[in-house]
Amino acid sequence: MDGKSKIPNPTARRLSLYFRELGDRRALDEKATMSSRQLGTALGYSDAQVRKDLTFVGQLGHPGVGYSVATLHDNLRRILGRDRSWNAALVGAGNIGRALLSYRRFDEQKFHITRVFDSNPRTIGTTIDQRVIRDVASIKEELVDCDIELGIIAVPAEHAQPVAEKLIEAGVGGILNFAPRRIEVPSTVVLSNVDFTLTLEQLAFQVNLCSTISHEEDDS
Amino acid sequence: MDGKSKIPNPTARRLSLYFRELGDRRALDEKATMSSRQLGTALGYSDAQVRKDLTFVGQLGHPGVGYSVATLHDNLRRILGRDRSWNAALVGAGNIGRALLSYRRFDEQKFHITRVFDSNPRTIGTTIDQRVIRDVASIKEELVDCDIELGIIAVPAEHAQPVAEKLIEAGVGGILNFAPRRIEVPSTVVLSNVDFTLTLEQLAFQVNLCSTISHEEDDS
Repeated sequence: MDGKSKIPNPTARRLSLYFRELGDRRALDEKATMSSRQLGTALGYSDAQVRKDLTFVGQLGHPGVGYSVATLHDNLRRILGRDRSWNAALVGAGNIGRALLSYRRFDEQKFHITRVFDSNPRTIGTTIDQRVIRDVASIKEELVDCDIELGIIAVPAEHAQPVAEKLIEAGVGGILNFAPRRIEVPSTVVLSNVDFTLTLEQLAFQVNLCSTISHEEDDS
Repeated sequence: MDGKSKIPNPTARRLSLYFRELGDRRALDEKATMSSRQLGTALGYSDAQVRKDLTFVGQLGHPGVGYSVATLHDNLRRILGRDRSWNAALVGAGNIGRALLSYRRFDEQKFHITRVFDSNPRTIGTTIDQRVIRDVASIKEELVDCDIELGIIAVPAEHAQPVAEKLIEAGVGGILNFAPRRIEVPSTVVLSNVDFTLTLEQLAFQVNLCSTISHEEDDS
């Protein structure tokens, strides 16, 4: 994994949004072209931002013509990894872990949780949806040579960091962390945190904004 | 709830990021000022975007001086609802629901799940963490006059829409939907979807980008 350069999270999110926007546009017109300004306007970004983001994927538009929607869409699909399947290891077979295992859309979207680990002796050796729960102590041996690139951490906060280290030793390139604790990973590993508090905070923001804006307008 | 104007999701997300950035800056210097360009540069947005977003909260900068960091931070805290607590009703006491109920950080951040509903007769009447699980059929009666503004949907996909309608009838202003199905809400209600597939997709994007960028550079 040496020598990987990391894309900033906001850039990756925008690339994903460009991919979806281009897909919608392409569905209407296979031969469409779009300028960076049009693509940016559709999503609320400046054309400079769009051009900068697309240099990350080595994509250049043609002055006065813009990007071919179909070509850019295909390139983004490949670059964003949507043309292949992904194997993941889940650590933690508690409430969150079980919810993820029963989530049918993962398989539909070509994300396969092929290994499950837990530390509870009563759980180890049992199966969930035909997947045997293995001992968390065996992560490294179990994951060697099994083509798992993503790790999902769904353990209590205090175990998140040691579990992350085991996954990284085993060679995963990306970690999705559901534990409510910040974990440290080397710069060669991609980390994504799912923070339910932040999600609820965003929703409350919106509800609050809706009810306060009318009052604010008088102050400006 | 009539007459609410809705803030676009990307704007709300940026306001939240401005709030955090301003908090960090304020911690270093209580008397700091920041221009829209400085705030935008710190987060990767154009100064025009920042100025536009801040008009949503009725906040104007002073030409040549910028915004007072402390004042803008205080205003955003109030407008974003971080100066008060929020009560939520949870519908669905399955894996996701139980995980949310055991999530200690909600209470720390002043989000309180004060009512829990389920449709399973074996579950109704039992308690989780001192909260009695009530019948989903009684949502409207139970929620009237109890100051619950947020609803959390953690039921199977096919029940998500009818549950959303019950919550809206009961007067919630915001819904957090964990069910893997798109639900329809009136424009007066704020909807936020938690899509684990999208989250995993983003992570895979990043891992894939890291490993493909070096190849792409040759093509541009």
